[in-house]
Amino acid sequence: MFGSMHLGDLIPFMLSKYLQDAFKVPLVIQLSDDENCLGEKHSIKESRILARENAKSIIAFGFDITRTFIFCNSDYMRGAFYRNMVKVSKCIECDEAMGSYGIAGEDPIGKVGFSSAKAAPSFSSSFPHLFSGEDHCRCLIPCAIDEDANFRMIRGVASEIGYCKPALIESSIFPALQGENGDPNSAIYVTDSVEVNRNKINRYAFSGGQGTVELHRKVGANLEVDVPIKYLSFFLEDDMEFECIKREYGAGRMLGGEVKQRLIQVLVDLVERHQKARAAVTDEMVDEFMAKRPLVFN
Amino acid sequence: MFGSMHLGDLIPFMLSKYLQDAFKVPLVIQLSDDENCLGEKHSIKESRILARENAKSIIAFGFDITRTFIFCNSDYMRGAFYRNMVKVSKCIECDEAMGSYGIAGEDPIGKVGFSSAKAAPSFSSSFPHLFSGEDHCRCLIPCAIDEDANFRMIRGVASEIGYCKPALIESSIFPALQGENGDPNSAIYVTDSVEVNRNKINRYAFSGGQGTVELHRKVGANLEVDVPIKYLSFFLEDDMEFECIKREYGAGRMLGGEVKQRLIQVLVDLVERHQKARAAVTDEMVDEFMAKRPLVFN
Repeated sequence: MFGSMHLGDLIPFMLSKYLQDAFKVPLVIQLSDDENCLGEKHSIKESRILARENAKSIIAFGFDITRTFIFCNSDYMRGAFYRNMVKVSKCIECDEAMGSYGIAGEDPIGKVGFSSAKAAPSFSSSFPHLFSGEDHCRCLIPCAIDEDANFRMIRGVASEIGYCKPALIESSIFPALQGENGDPNSAIYVTDSVEVNRNKINRYAFSGGQGTVELHRKVGANLEVDVPIKYLSFFLEDDMEFECIKREYGAGRMLGGEVKQRLIQVLVDLVERHQKARAAVTDEMVDEFMAKRPLVFN
Repeated sequence: MFGSMHLGDLIPFMLSKYLQDAFKVPLVIQLSDDENCLGEKHSIKESRILARENAKSIIAFGFDITRTFIFCNSDYMRGAFYRNMVKVSKCIECDEAMGSYGIAGEDPIGKVGFSSAKAAPSFSSSFPHLFSGEDHCRCLIPCAIDEDANFRMIRGVASEIGYCKPALIESSIFPALQGENGDPNSAIYVTDSVEVNRNKINRYAFSGGQGTVELHRKVGANLEVDVPIKYLSFFLEDDMEFECIKREYGAGRMLGGEVKQRLIQVLVDLVERHQKARAAVTDEMVDEFMAKRPLVFN
């Protein structure tokens, strides 16, 4: 991942954290500062600084430092990693990559070239300091479904170059705040204050409730299009409560405003916890998580 | 450079050797094993082995080990080098690179992506172990003229990313043995034996001499199309002798066969010297030349 973290970005990290705690597995997190700087906005220097800021947001999830290696491409880059990039690069045609990633002829060549950098971490031989000699460790990648085309291509290449296909757990589409045709920039960021957060939800979150209380009480909410309900499906831990809210709201006994208030509670709590944890992440911790070192494997 | 070395490949190395001796300058030589393996023929593993064989052929020119660093991309690859690749990659459009290098849509993405790897050595910051802190050293690149499109693009990018443009000394076109429309695979390789060498020249070298001795004596040779004369222009050290041969041959007083014999002498001598020097290059010497170490700078 890269850039400011919004709510949708949290899901794969929350799942990764769960998996690491449950199975005591090593976790490798790639920060694509190379790809990020190919847009107009940032230089590679700025992208590296941003990568460290991203690392802080990630570390704030509470990953186990003895089992987690975070790296950014332009720092970690080395022979073994690059050789896997070369292997991948040999198997993907320009047309295929340009089609999959929506790259145009006037886009910079890095967009084509560095797609192979996103593939290399799927293969354990890219990290000799972690998996020395173990070139066929299986890799599980929790990610958002919009990464599907990318990893589908990597899975296709894996057997061609003699490696195991990475397995994926994809989180489902995280809707924009304004619903299906909403502005994707209207997202809630983990850096937003409580007030901004509350305001965004009250103002922009697309509601499936009816226009008047009378009508709402009569026909109930349309849960299919209701964004607060969708967000609660991701973030409300208590499944019983969630079922109850859906039932009451769908039947018109609960109002859209009440659902929004519950969502605000949940998100404010989540974001505050994350912000507090992030504020406690020091530069030294970032250095440690990003240091090339062995990890604990049991 | 990469692959089996033929006569035309020698020129930039001979010039580099001269420049290093005359000016006591550090020399960096890139072996593009990444690019090489993108063809059908070789895996990256095989390309790395080939790179070492190439290094032996290069070391045989007698470069000063205290002033020469030879590296192959997939071994040396690291942060500083890669960051320059990224900078370059940001400035070149896909269409431009595909046009310049003749890359088609069905070619592997590496052909687009790794063109930036060929650019990185033009900039001293790619080699922090050699030019630490000196990010704006000027770079002179002796190369064959067929590399012109590549370096023209790199020169165009240099100022955009805040670096000095590399300067070039390009050797002129080295003709195929059979002349203008000849098979480029009919080249003389530095690994050819004396017999093969002699045979190739006698049999295939396109002659500007006339069909019969009588006619030749009368009208003289066409020096414009004569390949032995062109080869002598590259390899005969004695300029006076060369002028003499041109005069005599052009006037018909010297025969095509005689010119070929002189060329064979020159080349057999050159190739034998190179083969002998190459046989004396040990694996340890290759390791030393390719080791990441400081060089002597005066």
